[in-house]
Amino acid sequence: MADTVDRMQQRLVYLFGTGTTHGHAGMRELLGGKGANLAEMSNLGLPVPPGFTITTDVSNLYYANAKTLPSGIEDAVIDAIDKVGAAVDMRFGDVDNPLLVAVRSGARASMPGMMDTILNLGLNDQTVEGLARRSGDARFAYDSYRRFIQMYGDVVLGVDHGVFEDILANYKNLNGLASDTRLAAEDWQAVIDQYKAAIMREIEAPFPQDTRAQLWGAIGAVLNSWQSARAITYRRINDIPDVWGTAVTVQAMVFGNMGTSSATGVAFTRNPSTGANEIYGEFLVNAQGEDVVAGIRTPQLLTNAARADLGTKGATLEELMPAAFAELTVIFSRLERHYRDMQDIEFTIQGGKLWILQTRSGKRTVEAGLRIAVELAEAGVITRDEAVLRIDPGSLDQLLHPTIDPSVDRQVIAAGLPASPGAAAGEIVFTAEEAEEFKVKGRSVILVRIETSPEDVHGMYAAAGILTARGGMTSHAAVVARGMGRPCVSGAGMLRIDAKAGTLTIGKEILKRGDVITIDGSTGQVIKGRAEMRQPALSGAFATIMGWADAVRTLKVRANADTPRDAKQAREFGAEGIGLCRTEHMFFEEARILAMREMICAGDAKGRRAALAKILPMQRADFEAIFEIMAPLPVTIRLLDPPLHEFLPHHEREQEAVAEALKMPIDKLKARVSELSEFNPMLGFRGCRLAIRYPEITEMQARAVFEAAANVEKKTGAKVAVEVMIPLVAYRREYDILADVIRAAVVAVEHEMGVKLACSLGTMIELPRTALRAEEIAAGEAGADFFSFGTNDLTQTVLGLSRDDAAPILARYQEVGVFDVDPFVSIDVDGVGELVRIGVERGRKAKPGLKMGICGEHGGDPASVSFFHACELDYVSCSPFRVPVARLAAAQAALLARDGDAVGVATTKRNSA
Amino acid sequence: MADTVDRMQQRLVYLFGTGTTHGHAGMRELLGGKGANLAEMSNLGLPVPPGFTITTDVSNLYYANAKTLPSGIEDAVIDAIDKVGAAVDMRFGDVDNPLLVAVRSGARASMPGMMDTILNLGLNDQTVEGLARRSGDARFAYDSYRRFIQMYGDVVLGVDHGVFEDILANYKNLNGLASDTRLAAEDWQAVIDQYKAAIMREIEAPFPQDTRAQLWGAIGAVLNSWQSARAITYRRINDIPDVWGTAVTVQAMVFGNMGTSSATGVAFTRNPSTGANEIYGEFLVNAQGEDVVAGIRTPQLLTNAARADLGTKGATLEELMPAAFAELTVIFSRLERHYRDMQDIEFTIQGGKLWILQTRSGKRTVEAGLRIAVELAEAGVITRDEAVLRIDPGSLDQLLHPTIDPSVDRQVIAAGLPASPGAAAGEIVFTAEEAEEFKVKGRSVILVRIETSPEDVHGMYAAAGILTARGGMTSHAAVVARGMGRPCVSGAGMLRIDAKAGTLTIGKEILKRGDVITIDGSTGQVIKGRAEMRQPALSGAFATIMGWADAVRTLKVRANADTPRDAKQAREFGAEGIGLCRTEHMFFEEARILAMREMICAGDAKGRRAALAKILPMQRADFEAIFEIMAPLPVTIRLLDPPLHEFLPHHEREQEAVAEALKMPIDKLKARVSELSEFNPMLGFRGCRLAIRYPEITEMQARAVFEAAANVEKKTGAKVAVEVMIPLVAYRREYDILADVIRAAVVAVEHEMGVKLACSLGTMIELPRTALRAEEIAAGEAGADFFSFGTNDLTQTVLGLSRDDAAPILARYQEVGVFDVDPFVSIDVDGVGELVRIGVERGRKAKPGLKMGICGEHGGDPASVSFFHACELDYVSCSPFRVPVARLAAAQAALLARDGDAVGVATTKRNSA
Repeated sequence: MADTVDRMQQRLVYLFGTGTTHGHAGMRELLGGKGANLAEMSNLGLPVPPGFTITTDVSNLYYANAKTLPSGIEDAVIDAIDKVGAAVDMRFGDVDNPLLVAVRSGARASMPGMMDTILNLGLNDQTVEGLARRSGDARFAYDSYRRFIQMYGDVVLGVDHGVFEDILANYKNLNGLASDTRLAAEDWQAVIDQYKAAIMREIEAPFPQDTRAQLWGAIGAVLNSWQSARAITYRRINDIPDVWGTAVTVQAMVFGNMGTSSATGVAFTRNPSTGANEIYGEFLVNAQGEDVVAGIRTPQLLTNAARADLGTKGATLEELMPAAFAELTVIFSRLERHYRDMQDIEFTIQGGKLWILQTRSGKRTVEAGLRIAVELAEAGVITRDEAVLRIDPGSLDQLLHPTIDPSVDRQVIAAGLPASPGAAAGEIVFTAEEAEEFKVKGRSVILVRIETSPEDVHGMYAAAGILTARGGMTSHAAVVARGMGRPCVSGAGMLRIDAKAGTLTIGKEILKRGDVITIDGSTGQVIKGRAEMRQPALSGAFATIMGWADAVRTLKVRANADTPRDAKQAREFGAEGIGLCRTEHMFFEEARILAMREMICAGDAKGRRAALAKILPMQRADFEAIFEIMAPLPVTIRLLDPPLHEFLPHHEREQEAVAEALKMPIDKLKARVSELSEFNPMLGFRGCRLAIRYPEITEMQARAVFEAAANVEKKTGAKVAVEVMIPLVAYRREYDILADVIRAAVVAVEHEMGVKLACSLGTMIELPRTALRAEEIAAGEAGADFFSFGTNDLTQTVLGLSRDDAAPILARYQEVGVFDVDPFVSIDVDGVGELVRIGVERGRKAKPGLKMGICGEHGGDPASVSFFHACELDYVSCSPFRVPVARLAAAQAALLARDGDAVGVATTKRNSA
Repeated sequence: MADTVDRMQQRLVYLFGTGTTHGHAGMRELLGGKGANLAEMSNLGLPVPPGFTITTDVSNLYYANAKTLPSGIEDAVIDAIDKVGAAVDMRFGDVDNPLLVAVRSGARASMPGMMDTILNLGLNDQTVEGLARRSGDARFAYDSYRRFIQMYGDVVLGVDHGVFEDILANYKNLNGLASDTRLAAEDWQAVIDQYKAAIMREIEAPFPQDTRAQLWGAIGAVLNSWQSARAITYRRINDIPDVWGTAVTVQAMVFGNMGTSSATGVAFTRNPSTGANEIYGEFLVNAQGEDVVAGIRTPQLLTNAARADLGTKGATLEELMPAAFAELTVIFSRLERHYRDMQDIEFTIQGGKLWILQTRSGKRTVEAGLRIAVELAEAGVITRDEAVLRIDPGSLDQLLHPTIDPSVDRQVIAAGLPASPGAAAGEIVFTAEEAEEFKVKGRSVILVRIETSPEDVHGMYAAAGILTARGGMTSHAAVVARGMGRPCVSGAGMLRIDAKAGTLTIGKEILKRGDVITIDGSTGQVIKGRAEMRQPALSGAFATIMGWADAVRTLKVRANADTPRDAKQAREFGAEGIGLCRTEHMFFEEARILAMREMICAGDAKGRRAALAKILPMQRADFEAIFEIMAPLPVTIRLLDPPLHEFLPHHEREQEAVAEALKMPIDKLKARVSELSEFNPMLGFRGCRLAIRYPEITEMQARAVFEAAANVEKKTGAKVAVEVMIPLVAYRREYDILADVIRAAVVAVEHEMGVKLACSLGTMIELPRTALRAEEIAAGEAGADFFSFGTNDLTQTVLGLSRDDAAPILARYQEVGVFDVDPFVSIDVDGVGELVRIGVERGRKAKPGLKMGICGEHGGDPASVSFFHACELDYVSCSPFRVPVARLAAAQAALLARDGDAVGVATTKRNSA
């Protein structure tokens, strides 16, 4: 209660557009994005319908007090609505000159379509007549009233919207009316009577005629929608905290459906799909905003240029209402300069007068985001550093995955709008539930829907791509898919979808659930079967941003690469070396595993050496290929790490074949398999423990590494920078024993080949003990030359959680809030992170210049990269495809640290502003 | 080389008994135990044959420089030997009046029988004649010479001692001589010729006649024996570092074999077996020291009292040489008072004159150690604290194991000397190798030998007990067995042992290899079959020391006890509570596991609750029994911890039976088994993770705990101090979720039963993250009330080493010196220990009085207890049988910390002084 009282001292309701404007753009936390921007636009003198915003504090108090509004709010709202009415010379609830309002949610971050909105509030059986008189358009008035009843009935009173749709459809059928525009005022009056009767039937109470009761009902519904299932899901997917709460904006209605000189539309100041600097948007004449977004009528384009580009027909706003269009273009560029970012704007033209309803930083594809950031920076609107900070590093991921190979023939079976770029192939499913089921089984799916709604969001998340038959570029499907980075083709009108039968019919083509299609969200094409994909490349704005990022970052970025193919990809993506080259992968190849098995089953060191001698030339060749690609960049080679039983056959038939090939009795092979089996292989006979037991393995590997280095140096003249890394070290003595073996190999190779080789030796830090003993392990000239934090294993040991067994535990733990994010994806800063910090501090205590990096999968996670920057590591190493992500994240970390921001600010949050 | 030069500045040779005595008792590190004590005795004015000691520095330089003696040593030795000669009016190498010397090893710690000794050195073909003339006893002179050749030939020249034994046996046979005493001077001369010829044959070089060459050969042999296989083994078993090195003592010979007024003997100032304050020792008339120790002739007792006690025959020293005996007793008590400890003394009487050859703190049984410490303290010779510090806590273990139940009839088949107390049963083996083989297979064995030699030490270590046919109370077998804490019966002359045939014949009884016998080292009895054993109790000196220990320690000692039986045992051994009561053990009982399996296989919470309801009354009854025994001492109950698959059947047939009993399809059961199987169960679905997934398990357990507490309080009136411990917590949120469940159960039970219960909640700290986040987990009133470090799991996670899989790794790691001691036995202070320290510091930062203990197996390891004391933990908890060990270790830690000693000084070292 103390909290309530404190908060009560503060203003709960903020006016805008009424002459007095309390808020501004900086008050996003309190007023939500929408409320803050309306206040800001109002301050700018733009034509904003007046209104007021109920703060997010009210939302939080509402939930803190069992859904009870704080006292004092009532008077404040009544006072505010009177002032709004005064500003437009109307009165709320007045039968002659009624003020109608829109009630909308407005969270700090945009959650498109997730929360409820009520329009036309303030109409009742009396005020509708006043509206009809004032507007001189009875049809408009009754149409508004029925829309209001329908929306309020659905959202506030909980009457299924199907009830209203059925009434309307039925009425049209009975009266032979083909479309809504054919209904006259009387028709709408008849529909309204049926709507009211239906509400009475459904909720056993009449539709509220008291306009204040309507207002409180709507405010309550908007507040409640913050905790709707779909809003909660959206927040979870987008990392939006529950505690932010929502503001409620009540704003005077303006009408795009007041005849043919009225219109409503949405616009982006730049193309949100490509980033091109062109007005991009859609509108509908004589319609309310919901008609544009809902995808029920296919909207028209704003500009003639866009129409030409897309090759569509229909009049543009530029043609139909040139004055309003001209005013709009001026406002667009003003808003973009003011907000220093591409804007997403809702507008309405009522009887030829332009009203700006909303502006916000527009969602955009990653490609568009890059281009917009670069072009804004080049235009001097923002700095290069700001451009770098504008891009969510994680989002780059979608540019770094294959697209359809343009050189291959495609069997295009349909086309729609290029609603969200990128290509995806998968099995056809028809419901969100199917999409999730298939996903769980590891299958890639394309979700095919007539149109999508917020209820489909979880299925869209589970799908590799989305295909819809209806809806434009700003339809629900398109906006949500772009936000999620899922390819989407929308409005492909030729699709005939029968979800019950599980068929998708396109002309004569009948596809069934489970058939594979490919969609290309960049062209709008739908392709039969799985199309050939092409590797992405860094170019254009992407390359520019990467260059700017590289200029500011201090953390180097390497790649984890085990093969020449990986190494090539890594260099293409700008890796500055290989941070982890796992040598065991080299042994699993058909031709090699037999020698490996022979080694494992040998009875003595002599037998092992004989088998290892067969592996040596193959291993050396692997290294030669990688060194040639990477030189002179450093390559960190990790010695054999996995438990030996991973190399042995575990099934009877396979064992027989192997025993025969090795000319050994099968019982002996089985005995060896059984001897090497372990209760907890993760904590068992692996890493340097293998090498200490069988030093001949390390002898062979060291020889292969240094012979390869010598050969490549001789062949290419380039200096090969090899770093040999000993895995799973926990004790200095382990390091010393194997370092001696490796150094002896270097000396031998130098002697035999008459060369002088550089030899850098280091250890993984993947066990808590290693981090704690880092000083001892690095101490002295013979101590480790470098450390590489193996944060995968370190996470397993610090949390006592096996990654292979963690799935059910992780799911439950995210559910009950033990952690927000999978600690194998983003580093556990408080636990694992502390050991990393300890390891760094102690390692550098022994050797101030000790080179340190990380090579766990966290190396490609932006939040983790930011943490590693703060730890002052020298580099992160991640999969080749994540290298650009890490480069950008490292740059952002450097910029934020320079600007004194807290480390680990989630960059996603910034972009959703 | 710099090192050599530095050391050269120091004295390499220390004289004693020559008028000048350089050393004293405090110079054990430099002079070895023997050398330091000879110097000390010499300083005390005791009759010590003069000599000098070559320092351990020389030994270390010798090994550091490829077995080369440092320069300067030659002159120093020659100078010293001249001074020794002068002191006894003889000259080394002089043909008329030759000085003979003994050359012995002397390490800092006693290593009985482990290293080489050469006697009678200085004899050659000339000096032997001088000795004959001077002593007037040609037989003695030639006997000494042949002994010298034999010993030198074996030890220095490497000629197998069998060669000499064969020659002698052959000579006796040919000449019809029954025993050595029958050989006259001429016989020995003939034997000597054959010995010398044999040496020439074996090593192709003559036996050295140059006495200085003899001396250097002997010094080298003693130095080399430091690295003999048996010495290395002994050091490994007894934790003696290699780097200590050995000193070499060269001392004028005195002769116990100069006729019937000569004798040699060993004595303890107290009974080393029982600790009784009585002279205890043996001697042989006309013999050299080796004859007593070797067990070839059965020696006579020193005192009449001992003879009466043991019921043996034969003249005592007290009878035969009363004057020497009287002088000896005076010296004994003087030495004991001087050294403030029971002494083990070697003496020789030459022609009636007493010489003291050696004194050292005597090895003793644990029981004797306790009694001696208590009696010395009670006599005011040492303080009570010193008495507490004198006992190796680890050695108490042997008093805490079963002895033969005296109330049961024993089939005694033989009797020998009670050489090392305690009882042991096991299968008969006849060689050290067999003993090791059986041990590896987990079988308990009794090693049966005619007599033992240093080559048998590894087998004695592997055996549960040792039985010999020959040798006295100070024979090799007896001394080594007492040192190792192995029961031993020696000198059981009625045994006829045929190792090749694998039979032990005692009268008509023929036992074979593998037959079971029991030996009672406290009575000397050999019993057929496995005798009933009795649990030990704390009484007498043991109880007194425990009382003194309790008076000084600050660390409390609890026990790990899962059953009422364990709990009773724990209280008897002085546990101050239960630190770990594992509840899962309660579920494995036949009657309960089915309900447990039903719970695991239930499809929903309702089904689980139904199964848990069956377990509740059983679990409650367990707790009631334990609470009744322990109240008002605290009992820490750990919630269910192991992975659920441990409760499920894994074999086909068992699965069928369980499926039938549970009335479920076997496929469903199999599916559940497979679903719960894990790659790394140690890091999987266990501990609090189970409870967070299935909170109903915790509900049931909490209810059982608190209902039991309420019932016991009502029944007994005593306050039950329950501490509920949540396992495997890594995150505060895990703790909070389960703490809420438990607190709700407390409230419910209080309400239902009308009682008020104390409820202390805490967590295990068994993961690195938990230690790092200790402050957060303990913070606030709702935070943990206590921590218990689970050092078993903490060791597994910090080292990344699965205990179940560690055996082959541990063995290899001890071999190559990664660690000296198994980290699962004695805590890894540098790694795991640091996390304990971090956890303590952070926990107390949140709550200054936070109660903290440890409940891993390290709780019963003295070195670990010492560390935990230093960490300022409140208690350790260990197995009931280790409680007295922990109590003593805790007291020693407190004393050492008070006295400013370094923590973790191995107490074994102190006792071997």
